[in-house]
Amino acid sequence: MVTRMSSLFLRTLRDDPADAEVPSHKLLVRAGYVRRVAPGIYSWLPLGKIVLDNIARVVKEEMDRIGAQEVQFPALLPREFYEATGRWTEYGENLFRLRDRKGGDYLLGPTHEEMFTLMVKGEYSSYKDLPVILYQIQNKYRDEARPRAGILRGREFLMKDSYSFDLDDEGLKRSYELHREAYIRIFTRLGMNYRIVSAMSGAMGGSASEEFLAPAATGEDTFVQCVNCDYAANTEAVEGRPGAEIDASATPAARVYDTPDTPTIESLVEVFRGFEGFEDTAAANTLKNVVVKLRVPGKKDAEVLIVGVPGDRDVDMKRLEAAVAPAEIELFEAEDFAKHPALVRGYIGPQGLAEAGYTYKVDPLVVPGSSWITGANEAGKHAAHVTCGRDFTPEGTVGAAEVRAGDACPRCGGALSIDRGIEIGHIFQLGRKYADAFQLDVLGPEGKPVRVTMGSYGVGVSRAVAAVVEQTYDERGIVWPREIAPADVHLVATGKDDAVFEAAADLAAELDAAGVRVIFDDRRKVSPGVKLKDAELIGVPTVAVVGKGLAEGVIEVQDRATGEKRDVPLGEAVAALAV
Amino acid sequence: MVTRMSSLFLRTLRDDPADAEVPSHKLLVRAGYVRRVAPGIYSWLPLGKIVLDNIARVVKEEMDRIGAQEVQFPALLPREFYEATGRWTEYGENLFRLRDRKGGDYLLGPTHEEMFTLMVKGEYSSYKDLPVILYQIQNKYRDEARPRAGILRGREFLMKDSYSFDLDDEGLKRSYELHREAYIRIFTRLGMNYRIVSAMSGAMGGSASEEFLAPAATGEDTFVQCVNCDYAANTEAVEGRPGAEIDASATPAARVYDTPDTPTIESLVEVFRGFEGFEDTAAANTLKNVVVKLRVPGKKDAEVLIVGVPGDRDVDMKRLEAAVAPAEIELFEAEDFAKHPALVRGYIGPQGLAEAGYTYKVDPLVVPGSSWITGANEAGKHAAHVTCGRDFTPEGTVGAAEVRAGDACPRCGGALSIDRGIEIGHIFQLGRKYADAFQLDVLGPEGKPVRVTMGSYGVGVSRAVAAVVEQTYDERGIVWPREIAPADVHLVATGKDDAVFEAAADLAAELDAAGVRVIFDDRRKVSPGVKLKDAELIGVPTVAVVGKGLAEGVIEVQDRATGEKRDVPLGEAVAALAV
Repeated sequence: MVTRMSSLFLRTLRDDPADAEVPSHKLLVRAGYVRRVAPGIYSWLPLGKIVLDNIARVVKEEMDRIGAQEVQFPALLPREFYEATGRWTEYGENLFRLRDRKGGDYLLGPTHEEMFTLMVKGEYSSYKDLPVILYQIQNKYRDEARPRAGILRGREFLMKDSYSFDLDDEGLKRSYELHREAYIRIFTRLGMNYRIVSAMSGAMGGSASEEFLAPAATGEDTFVQCVNCDYAANTEAVEGRPGAEIDASATPAARVYDTPDTPTIESLVEVFRGFEGFEDTAAANTLKNVVVKLRVPGKKDAEVLIVGVPGDRDVDMKRLEAAVAPAEIELFEAEDFAKHPALVRGYIGPQGLAEAGYTYKVDPLVVPGSSWITGANEAGKHAAHVTCGRDFTPEGTVGAAEVRAGDACPRCGGALSIDRGIEIGHIFQLGRKYADAFQLDVLGPEGKPVRVTMGSYGVGVSRAVAAVVEQTYDERGIVWPREIAPADVHLVATGKDDAVFEAAADLAAELDAAGVRVIFDDRRKVSPGVKLKDAELIGVPTVAVVGKGLAEGVIEVQDRATGEKRDVPLGEAVAALAV
Repeated sequence: MVTRMSSLFLRTLRDDPADAEVPSHKLLVRAGYVRRVAPGIYSWLPLGKIVLDNIARVVKEEMDRIGAQEVQFPALLPREFYEATGRWTEYGENLFRLRDRKGGDYLLGPTHEEMFTLMVKGEYSSYKDLPVILYQIQNKYRDEARPRAGILRGREFLMKDSYSFDLDDEGLKRSYELHREAYIRIFTRLGMNYRIVSAMSGAMGGSASEEFLAPAATGEDTFVQCVNCDYAANTEAVEGRPGAEIDASATPAARVYDTPDTPTIESLVEVFRGFEGFEDTAAANTLKNVVVKLRVPGKKDAEVLIVGVPGDRDVDMKRLEAAVAPAEIELFEAEDFAKHPALVRGYIGPQGLAEAGYTYKVDPLVVPGSSWITGANEAGKHAAHVTCGRDFTPEGTVGAAEVRAGDACPRCGGALSIDRGIEIGHIFQLGRKYADAFQLDVLGPEGKPVRVTMGSYGVGVSRAVAAVVEQTYDERGIVWPREIAPADVHLVATGKDDAVFEAAADLAAELDAAGVRVIFDDRRKVSPGVKLKDAELIGVPTVAVVGKGLAEGVIEVQDRATGEKRDVPLGEAVAALAV
C-alpha cells in the first residue's frame, strides 16, 4: 500500500498539546495518531488506526495459535449478570451505568468474566467439552477517577480479554502456561521490553497471577527485581521475608514515658531525643500500629486487624490488601475508634492487644527480639524497649510496609531494586469464583457434576500503542518497531525537480508491488526540512530520501532508530528496502 | 485454516428459540452464530464472528478502494457536541444517555456526523485539503422502542459510516457517486440481491438520497418499483404525480347534509348511502382532511398544515414528513384544536380554509375538478359535491396518502408494485447542515472562507449478516455466499472406521495447505445424519463427505445451495474443492 502525504488525513503539530504530560501522549498527538474527545476518551486518526489494528492482529494471531477461539460480546450489558457476582456494586464509581428507555439498568462492560462464564454454561455440559479458551478484542469502559497520560489510562480502551475453562487445577495451569507463552510471543513481536512479575503475594501462590510490565519512567506500576536472583514482583505483591531473630536478653524492660502532643512520628522522635539514652533515636526505632477493617468474603461483619510496621515506613495499603486477599481492607475511621475505647488513637501499642481480643500482626521487618518505641495504649504516653516476643507476640507476619530499594529479596535475601512499569498484560488463575457464582458445572467422567475452574487473561491493546512509544521514542519523535509501524518505508521526495518526484513515485509503486508498505511524501510545497522532521516524528522504521543524490543515481536511506544513513543506488533501492 | 467440530465452541439447536420470529433470527441462533444477551443485544459465537469479520473486510476493502481513510471514534461521547446540533434532544428516547462520576453528560454514539465534522475542522483549513472521505466500522447504539428480529434491528450493532467533505455541489456529487459504486461492489460481493431506491421525494431532489434495500419478506421497509420504467423508491419517498384534470362543468353545486354521529369514514359512508343519489357511494368518494403541526427549522412556532387525501387511504405520516423535509411534523392534539375553533374536529372541509388563513394542500390523487363528500366545518354536518378548483383551491400538492400497489408511477404513469426490503445501505447528500452547525469552513482559492458540503453514507454490517440469511436460507438451514461464509468446505467424516477419519484428516490438511478454509467434522460419536444436518444448518457453500465411498476411492461433494451431489475421486478432491 502506498499512502500519499498529499492526501493522507494527517496534520502534524509542532507544539506539545497543553494537557499532555508523558512523552507518548505528546508524540501520539503531535504525530497525528490520536485526538482527544473527552478526558480519557480518544479518537484514532488513520495512522493510529493502522498501528492499533497491527497490534490487535498480532494478539489475534498468537491467541489463535494456542487454540483460543474468538467471540464478541456486547459492550452494553444488563445489570442482572453483574448483580449476581456483586460487581454491579463493588465496581463503585468505576462503572459506567445507564438506564434504557424502559428503565432497565445497564452497564458498559469493564471486563467480561460474568459473560464468558454464562456463555460456556449455555453451550457446554460435559467434561469432554473442556478445556476451552475463548477471547475477544473489544472496547472496555472504566470511569477512572483520574484518566491520565493519553491512551495509557483511558476510560474507553481496546483490550484483549480471554478466559480459560478447565476441569481441574492441572488443566488450569496448562491454560495459564499457554497464555504465558502466547504473551511472551506477543510482546516480543511488538518489539517491547517487558518483565514478567508476580502480581500476588505468597499467600495466594506466587505463580497464580503474573503481570507483564513494560519498564518505563512514566509507568504507574512499581515493581521490584532482585539484583541476585530472578525474583520480580509488583511492589504490591512483594512477599514478606521474615528477618533473623535478634537476641533481646540485654534489652531493658519496657518503660512508659509521658509524651503529650506527639501526633506524628517526627514529633515523637523529637520528644524522645530529649530523654536520656534516646539522644540518637530515629523514626526507624519506632513502631507504628495501623488499624484497618478487614472484609472477609462470606462474613457479614468486618474484622479488626492491627498491623505494626517500623515508623520510618508508610503502610502500603495495596500491598497489605494483596497480602490479605481475598479479604479487602477499609480504613478505620473516627467512628470506629469510638466503638473501640481500648484502641487509643495515636497511642496504640502492641502490648496487651491479643489479650484484649484483637488480631495483631507485624510486617516481617519487625523481627522477633527487636525492640521499639511505641504507643502505651494511653493518651499522651508512649513506651520504649517494647520487645517483640517478650512484651507482645504477633499472630504472624504480613507484608504491609512500603517496599524500598535495597530491601532484602524474599527469595534469596539479595538487594531489591525498584523500577516503574506500564502494565501491558495480566494472567490470572481465577479459580472457581465465577463458576461458583453461576454454578458452572459439567458432567464429569464419573457422571457427577464437576465445578469448572477458570483463568482470566488480558492484554491492553490500545495501551500497548502508548507503551511502545514510551519505550522507544527519542528527541526527534516516535520510533516504531516494524511489525506494528504504520508503514515500512517513509519515502520523501525533496526539491522542486519533477524528475525527482517522478522517480520517487516510481520507486513507491515498485516497493508496493514488492509488498513494502510505503508512506510517500509527495507534497510539492513543503520544505525538505519539514518533510524530514515529519518523517522522524511519525516514526516509520526506514526513511528514504529521493533528492539531490538522484543526479548521481542514489537515494539516501536512513534507519529511524539508529539514525544511520547510507546512499543506495536507485536500482538497488527495492532490494535494500524490501523486508 | 482447519476448524475441528470436536473442539469448535459451537452447539447447534434442534428447536427454534422461543423469542425468534424471522428466519434469520431462528437460524443464526440454531446454527450457533449468535446468542441473545438482552433485547436487541447479541453476542457473536466463533462462527458468527468470522462471518461478521468477513463482511467488515469486504466493506473495508471497497472503502479503501475509493480512497476513503479509516479512523475510529469513541462510542462514548460527551453531550456538548450533540447539543450543538440539537440532536441531544431530538434523538429523544432513542439515545442512550449516561453520566460519568463527575456528573458529566455522555451518550453512546448513534451516528457520528458531529464527530467527523469536528475532526475535519480540527485538522484541515484549506481548499487544497479537499476532497476527503473518512470512515469507521464501529458499534453504534440506539435504544429502539421495539428491537426486533434478532440482529436485524438491534440496539448495539456494527455499522460502517463514512462522510465526504467537498468544496461544492459537484464535488459532493462525485463523492456520492464513488460511494454508490462502492456499495454496488460491496453488496455484489456479499452475494446479496438488492435494489437502489430513492429515499427522498422530488422536493429535495430524487438522487440526493438513496437506500440499498435487500428484498425480503421480513423487511421493515416497503418500497415501490415501476413495472414499466426503472423508477424505484422507498414508499415514504414516492413522489406525487398530479393526475389529469376532471371536467367538473356538470357537477352539481355543493350541498350540506346533516350527518350526526359520523366519527369515522365508514359511518359517514353508511349515512350518505341513505341519501338520494349517493346509494353507491364509497370511502373513495370522501375527502379526509388531516391537520398536523409543521416544525420548520429556524422558526420558533409550529405552523398548521391541513392535507386532504381520499377517504379510502390512510395518511402515511412518514411519507408526508419526507415530503415536507427538512420540516418535521407533529400530531395536532385536542389542546391544539381547542386553540383553533375554526377547525371542527371530525367535520373539517377544505371550503374556506384558505380564507381563514390556513395552509391547505392535497395529495396528488385529489385532482382539479374532482368532487368529494367532506366536512362542512360545522359539527354534525358534511357537504357533498365539494369540488376541487371550484369550491376550494389547494396551495399545491403533497404526497401524503398511503401508496398502494397499482398506483401510477410518478415517472411514466405505469403501475407500481410494492415489496418489502431490509435497509442495508444508505447514501445521502447531507449538504451543509453540520458544516453550518460547526462553521466548518476552509480557505478557498480566492482567499475567502468556503463552507464545506458533506455526504453521509452507511452500511449495516451486522444487519447484513441477517439480511444475507433472509435472502438465501432454505428449509435445511443457512446458505452462505462463499465470500462471507465461515469456511469454504464443510468436511464430514462418517462411520466408525479409523481409516475414514484419517483420510478425512489428511484431506483437511491438504485443503488447508491449498488455502481452502475447512470446517472438519471429526466427531466420533455423532451419527452421520446429525453431522449432515449440522452441516446444512451451518450453511458452508460446499459439503464434502468422506465415508463409505472411500472403499471405492471417492468422496461425496454436495453444493449446499443447489443440493447437487457428485462423487469425486479422493485424488482429485483438493483440485475439485479448491476455489
